[in-house]
This record gives sequence, structure tokens and C-alpha cells, in this order.
Amino acid sequence: MKFEVTILGSSSATPIFNRNPTSQAININDRLYLVDCGEGTQQQMLRFDIKASRIDHIFISHLHGDHYLGLVGLISSLHLNGRIKPLRIYCPQQLKEIIDLQLNYSETTLQYPVEYVFTNPLKAEILLDNQDITVETIPLNHRISCTGFLFKEKKRLRKLIKEKIEGLEIPVAYYSALKKGADYIMPNGDVLKNDTLTTDSSDPKSFAYCSDTLYDERYFEQIRNVTLLYHEATFLNNMLDRAMETHHTTALQAAEIALTVNAEKLIIGHFSARYKTLTELLDEARSVFPNTELAIEGRTFIIGD
Amino acid sequence: MKFEVTILGSSSATPIFNRNPTSQAININDRLYLVDCGEGTQQQMLRFDIKASRIDHIFISHLHGDHYLGLVGLISSLHLNGRIKPLRIYCPQQLKEIIDLQLNYSETTLQYPVEYVFTNPLKAEILLDNQDITVETIPLNHRISCTGFLFKEKKRLRKLIKEKIEGLEIPVAYYSALKKGADYIMPNGDVLKNDTLTTDSSDPKSFAYCSDTLYDERYFEQIRNVTLLYHEATFLNNMLDRAMETHHTTALQAAEIALTVNAEKLIIGHFSARYKTLTELLDEARSVFPNTELAIEGRTFIIGD
Repeated sequence: MKFEVTILGSSSATPIFNRNPTSQAININDRLYLVDCGEGTQQQMLRFDIKASRIDHIFISHLHGDHYLGLVGLISSLHLNGRIKPLRIYCPQQLKEIIDLQLNYSETTLQYPVEYVFTNPLKAEILLDNQDITVETIPLNHRISCTGFLFKEKKRLRKLIKEKIEGLEIPVAYYSALKKGADYIMPNGDVLKNDTLTTDSSDPKSFAYCSDTLYDERYFEQIRNVTLLYHEATFLNNMLDRAMETHHTTALQAAEIALTVNAEKLIIGHFSARYKTLTELLDEARSVFPNTELAIEGRTFIIGD
Repeated sequence: MKFEVTILGSSSATPIFNRNPTSQAININDRLYLVDCGEGTQQQMLRFDIKASRIDHIFISHLHGDHYLGLVGLISSLHLNGRIKPLRIYCPQQLKEIIDLQLNYSETTLQYPVEYVFTNPLKAEILLDNQDITVETIPLNHRISCTGFLFKEKKRLRKLIKEKIEGLEIPVAYYSALKKGADYIMPNGDVLKNDTLTTDSSDPKSFAYCSDTLYDERYFEQIRNVTLLYHEATFLNNMLDRAMETHHTTALQAAEIALTVNAEKLIIGHFSARYKTLTELLDEARSVFPNTELAIEGRTFIIGD
């Protein structure tokens, strides 16, 4: 199953040329999920060939502008481009008021329904549960209410071992039972154990999106053993005081978190505009957690790769 | 006196790669005035080296998102970058409510004052009158309340003819009277007429910003003899029906307006995303009004040039 994330924006609040505020597009089994939607996200989607019309679920972490100011424009464009199918937005409750006010004053009546699911910043909750994944909130510790999002693949069915199956004349109608783990009883009464006919599917993969937050152990347990951890790393660790004052994380801390929770891989992002180049941030994180990458805009990370 | 306009965005509501929604920066005597502020305007200012910190006046024509969605981000960035001096915003009254709501929910208390001057869509009013210019609203005819803006240079003082003045031992303290048109009485009682000592300054120049609007004769008189007319031209004239339905103008109509009001030069912009290239729009306008240019992003037009 396809499970990958494309970075659309990697900057924090103050703008810098050539880095856009935060947004990520997650492709799971060719369904698109958008996480945060900073100003200019639509342009980034055009640049990196992410089809906005294919997004049905948008997750907004919190109401600092660099995480949602591109959303009203996107909602309007979908309307102007003829969208009919519903769009679901998972967000702090106040965002609905902001969006409704702007649509109201522009005298726009959307021709498609927007359904809201409001996030609770105080406890982890499952927001979405479909055939491919579950998505749950990760309560974070920022200056204002903020949640991350944990995307977890569902355990897939077992896989048939074709060479074994073919000679046995097992009715095709019975394949789905085999995939679910059933043994097969031959016409002569012999029992073929399931594990001689099928192999286990790969372990489900997961992606945790943690932005913006102080280093805070309370969310570590929830993201333990995550396959790919995206964690904000606004500052170098020599600005730890500033990070704590503004409720952000340093590159070193992000790496320590990845190590502590036993993540397979770490992406850092949400870089302060003071860093014209990002090498130092990457080096700092890799000194603790070598399997770290930068959230370079346009780059796609395959989860589990 | 410097009087020029730099195009920051030229697209209409639906996004297109490499064209940003509407915004223009006007430089008058090295003071910056921003007109409209579509999503991504901050990035465009960085790209074209327009210093946001030097903007003291922002004019917003109307509350369709492609004309103002970049404003809250800009206001926040000025705050984060340490602005202290006031910012004045000329806009429809409801914009204050939109901005206040977003600042409120992001728990941002600006460290500089924002002063609002609300525009009246029904009649032309002078919004600003300083040593360099006056700025007045142009009531336009759009689906929602919308005003354009007319920037008019003030008549400058007369210029001294240096060669004439130098031999006459006229006290320097009297120069300002000469510039204002006074004659000079010599110690012997002879009168030197002002026009032998000074020349008239050049005619004041003007810039009219007209976006978005139906072709509507009611605003033509106000922009008669304008030096540089920016007029929206969302569609080619073969889409006149669509232009009328959406309260927009075609390239042909924009050119007819420039001709009718005796503009010196025309810039067309606010192009529909359906036009991947703009040559046809330019050709259509030039067939009626040859001195037409496209609002290409990053291009600076000197008013009167």
C-alpha cells in the first residue's frame, strides 16, 4: 500500500524567500490527506503536482497563521473549480468561525459541503478510521492549543502463497478466509495449516506529525516505535532558551525524542527564518539520531523506506 | 519625484502556477504603499526586494480572497519582525473583524498600532492627503462592494532657473517665495517677473487602480486624463458574457476605457487562470489602445514614463 508524505512547506512564522510555511500532503493508497495549510500551499501543490481535488481530509494542528492561512483560499478554489464531494476538516473549533466569516463577507456559498471535526487539545482521540488507516490526535504543548496527528496503517490481510495454493484446487471463494488466517480442510479431511498456505503481511507502518511543541514527555508514549516521525525543530540547541520561551523544539531535542521513542526515521522541519541554510540543523540532529532528514519542500518520503 | 508601481500579483481567483493573486507596491518619493494583498504577497515582496517594513499604508479594494488573504500573515510578520510604527489600512469595514478574529484566536497582541480607515463603496472620497499625494477611492461595480484607488501627485513648486538667479544676488531666503510664483523687486525698484526666474514644474502625474469591476461609465469621469491606468482584464472579449456574469472586464473593454478616459498608458491584469499565456489578451487590448502593457509580476512601471 502506498504510504508517503510530500513536504509542501517547511518554514516557521516569519517568511523567508524559497521556504513556505508548513504543509504536508500524505498519500495513502492514492487518497490524499493534507496536514496544515500555511499561506501559499495552493501554489506549492501546483508546483509539486499534488492534485487539490483529490484531497478529502484536511488536518489543522493549531491557529497560528503559518499553519492555516492558506486554507480559506484553498476552500474557495475548490469551489470555483467545481468541487461537489464533501471536504472534511479536522481542526480547532474556532477555525470554523474564521472560515465562515470570510466566506460570508465574500458572499460565497460553497457548492460542496464542508464537514468539521473539532480536535480536543487535551486528550488523544481517533479522528478518522477507514479501510486503510486510523488517524488520531497527539496533544502537544504549544503557546495555544495544538495537536499533532498520528497516521497508522491498518494491519493488512495475510498473503496467499501462490505456488502452494495452485495445486490444491481450493475454491476461490475460500481465499478470503485464508487471508484472514483460516486453515483449509481438504475434501479427504486432511487439515492444511494456514501458515503453510499464506505469509503474514508486513507490519503496519505509522507516521507522526508533531508541530508545534515544547519538548514534553507526555506525548512520547503515544508515538513509541513510530515508523516515520516528523518533528518540528525550529532552532539550533544554542537557542534552547528561545525555543522554550516560544514553546518550540530544537534540532537536538527532536533527535533525542526520535531516539527515545525508537522511531525508525526522523524528518525535521518548521525552520526559523534565521537559518538561511539548514546544514547545521541537520548535523545537530544526526549527531544524536543518524537517520534524520530535512523537510525539503517538494521531497517525498516513503514511510518505511 | 519617484512615482512607480511594481506588480506583485496578476492572477484572479483560481490559482495558477507562476502567477500570484493581486497585489501592487507603489513607490512615491521612496514611501511604499501596498494595494491589495493576495495570498503569497509576502513571498512576492521577498522575491522582488520590496521591503515590507517600509510600507505604512495598505489599501484593500474588496473582500474576495484573492485581494486580501495575504494580509493577516503580513500583519503578523511585521509584528514578529519588531515593527513599532503604526500601519494604516484602508479597507471595507468587515476586514477589521476578520483580522481581529484571527489575531485573537492566535493570541497575538500586536506591538504596533493598526489604524483603520473604512472605505465607502458608494462615493469617491479622499482617504489620504500628504505632502506628496492624495489618494481617493474609485467606486467600482463588482459582485460585492469594491473600490479602486486613485493616486494623484501634488503640483510641485516652480523650479529656479539657476543661471538667471546666480548673477542677481537674490537673498537665499527669498527662493521659496520665487518657487511659489512671486516676482522679485530689485534693490533699485525694478521688478523681475517670476516667469523670467523660474519654470513651471511638470504636470502632476496620476495612477488609477481599477480592480475588480464591470465596465461601468460611472467611474470614467473620475479617472479622465489619468497618466497610468491599471485596469483588470480577466477575460478575452469572446467571454464577454462570462465577464458580465461575474462582474469583470474584458481586455477589449479595458482598452476602450483607457481610450475613452484619455489615459496615457494602460496596464492590464487580474488574468483568469484559463490563460496560460497572455499574448492574446495583450493583442486584443492593443488593437484598441496601443500603449498597453501586461501586469507581469516583478515588473516596475514608472508613472509618466
